[in-house]
Amino acid sequence: MFQDFFTPSVQHGLDVAGIFVFAISGALLAVRKNFDVFGIAVLATVTSVGGGLFRDLVIGAVPPAAFTDLAYFVTPLVAATLVYFLHPEVTRINRAVSTFDAAGLGLFCVTGTVKAYEYGLGLTASATLGLATAVGGGVLRDVLANEVPSLLRWDRDLYAVPAMVGAGMVALCLRYDALNPLTSGLAVITAFSLRMLAMHFHWRAPRAWNRRSATPDEA
Amino acid sequence: MFQDFFTPSVQHGLDVAGIFVFAISGALLAVRKNFDVFGIAVLATVTSVGGGLFRDLVIGAVPPAAFTDLAYFVTPLVAATLVYFLHPEVTRINRAVSTFDAAGLGLFCVTGTVKAYEYGLGLTASATLGLATAVGGGVLRDVLANEVPSLLRWDRDLYAVPAMVGAGMVALCLRYDALNPLTSGLAVITAFSLRMLAMHFHWRAPRAWNRRSATPDEA
Amino acid sequence: MFQDFFTPSVQHGLDVAGIFVFAISGALLAVRKNFDVFGIAVLATVTSVGGGLFRDLVIGAVPPAAFTDLAYFVTPLVAATLVYFLHPEVTRINRAVSTFDAAGLGLFCVTGTVKAYEYGLGLTASATLGLATAVGGGVLRDVLANEVPSLLRWDRDLYAVPAMVGAGMVALCLRYDALNPLTSGLAVITAFSLRMLAMHFHWRAPRAWNRRSATPDEA
Repeated sequence: MFQDFFTPSVQHGLDVAGIFVFAISGALLAVRKNFDVFGIAVLATVTSVGGGLFRDLVIGAVPPAAFTDLAYFVTPLVAATLVYFLHPEVTRINRAVSTFDAAGLGLFCVTGTVKAYEYGLGLTASATLGLATAVGGGVLRDVLANEVPSLLRWDRDLYAVPAMVGAGMVALCLRYDALNPLTSGLAVITAFSLRMLAMHFHWRAPRAWNRRSATPDEA
Repeated sequence: MFQDFFTPSVQHGLDVAGIFVFAISGALLAVRKNFDVFGIAVLATVTSVGGGLFRDLVIGAVPPAAFTDLAYFVTPLVAATLVYFLHPEVTRINRAVSTFDAAGLGLFCVTGTVKAYEYGLGLTASATLGLATAVGGGVLRDVLANEVPSLLRWDRDLYAVPAMVGAGMVALCLRYDALNPLTSGLAVITAFSLRMLAMHFHWRAPRAWNRRSATPDEA
Repeated sequence: MFQDFFTPSVQHGLDVAGIFVFAISGALLAVRKNFDVFGIAVLATVTSVGGGLFRDLVIGAVPPAAFTDLAYFVTPLVAATLVYFLHPEVTRINRAVSTFDAAGLGLFCVTGTVKAYEYGLGLTASATLGLATAVGGGVLRDVLANEVPSLLRWDRDLYAVPAMVGAGMVALCLRYDALNPLTSGLAVITAFSLRMLAMHFHWRAPRAWNRRSATPDEA
């Protein structure tokens, strides 16, 4: 369905771009955690292809795209190599990385939702898998690095909500047969912009209702 | 096979009840870990559908039930919402939650074993997957919360054994063609009761033989 | 393809040997982490069959071999029982365990690559899955034990590289139609020997370029 609107090469290029920027974020965390060069490569790979791998296993698209497309394999290694040699500069351009990461989030929530729908899932399930595609790699990255996933922490800027909005927009378009380059692009841009705004204004989600007064023993 | 004994709506209702109580336990841990509202929803979902998702991927039942049945999707969110607004009360009724959690454990070890057997696995493999269905969500919950899974810790009351006994009873019934509402119900009740007794009397499993004397450097 | 060279019983025996030694390493970590007897059994099982389970899910070989072959199920439990009763002695023979673990690493990287290739994956993807088969169980073991995977840490002797070399040799043999008992055996022995040498001489992989000077705030 998606292929009718985007040419495969455009779709593929966007996917690879998303993988690249997510791989950068994984590699940077590996440097911060003092991992060796192989740890950097592993974390870059897991972060960038983990979400799509989970989606493909759930929808039964085996072997997953990550194992059938050489570009999906090489891209994380290129990103890891760049970070390995240039990490101080990369850290300095942290803002640029966050921008690309937000772009990857926007793209993956859209392509993930469409791919799940193409495999016959319902609209709600497709949007949920689109969300999982967008945030799954980051969760795996944090679990392997032995940290609480930043997706779950209250003291991080909104991350899931922009992806939810983007995936929800795609699901609505699919429902009303209105998915086209314009609406898909709009969904990508909306998710991307929401994430950028959340970082700029430090939008955060609330913790449990009345939490402070209810739990004085908070650590 | 199971459908011959329980009507689908009964089976479905029991599944949803199990999902609900497991979701409560995940949401409560999220509140304790100070996660935000999305972290609460994610942990509730992962805890309640994680075990069944793993089972479905292993037996090749894709897309997994968690993504094809809207009730499986909505139930964890309802539980998360309840905990979000009412968590002090929920914590206070911790005993009730533990009771429901034990019921979920008993139910999932039985339904997980039967579903795996229906997909052609052997008796031992089916019972093992039934056990994995019952305890898998809790393990994922603890991994995401960056804690040692309580399933593995020696200082927690028996959790795996009740599920093992329940799954083993079902496997025996399948072996001797004796699975019927009475025997399945008996398996659920046995697993449930063993878990309740384990909590009441603080039954614990032994650590490695002669551990204390052998490892003076214990942390 | 592999079956043409090794008889199924030889192949099976080697697989079980690999599972046994990996299970020993998982059980020993469980003892060190003070887990109870079920934690020991769970960690032994996850460590020994986790890598192959991931491979089988990715290539669509469901139900995975770990759930269809009783020997794969019993072997980790035997290893866990041995460690449970004999762990001081097992710790003392740590060197022997490391030797067997290296043998398992060499074996799994070869059999994993071949199995993935038999299921139609490309050469690069097959070698990658062979590597994942060899190291995956250990990563799962460390994640469940709430530790940073030793695969990723710079202060551990080389582990991934020997498996990479072994898997790469198999891929080259497959490419040039030169896979036979001699070349497969050579790949196993090369991976095994490299791992033994890495432990003996404490070969380690470098951390990110210029790391020390670049990040004075290193913890």
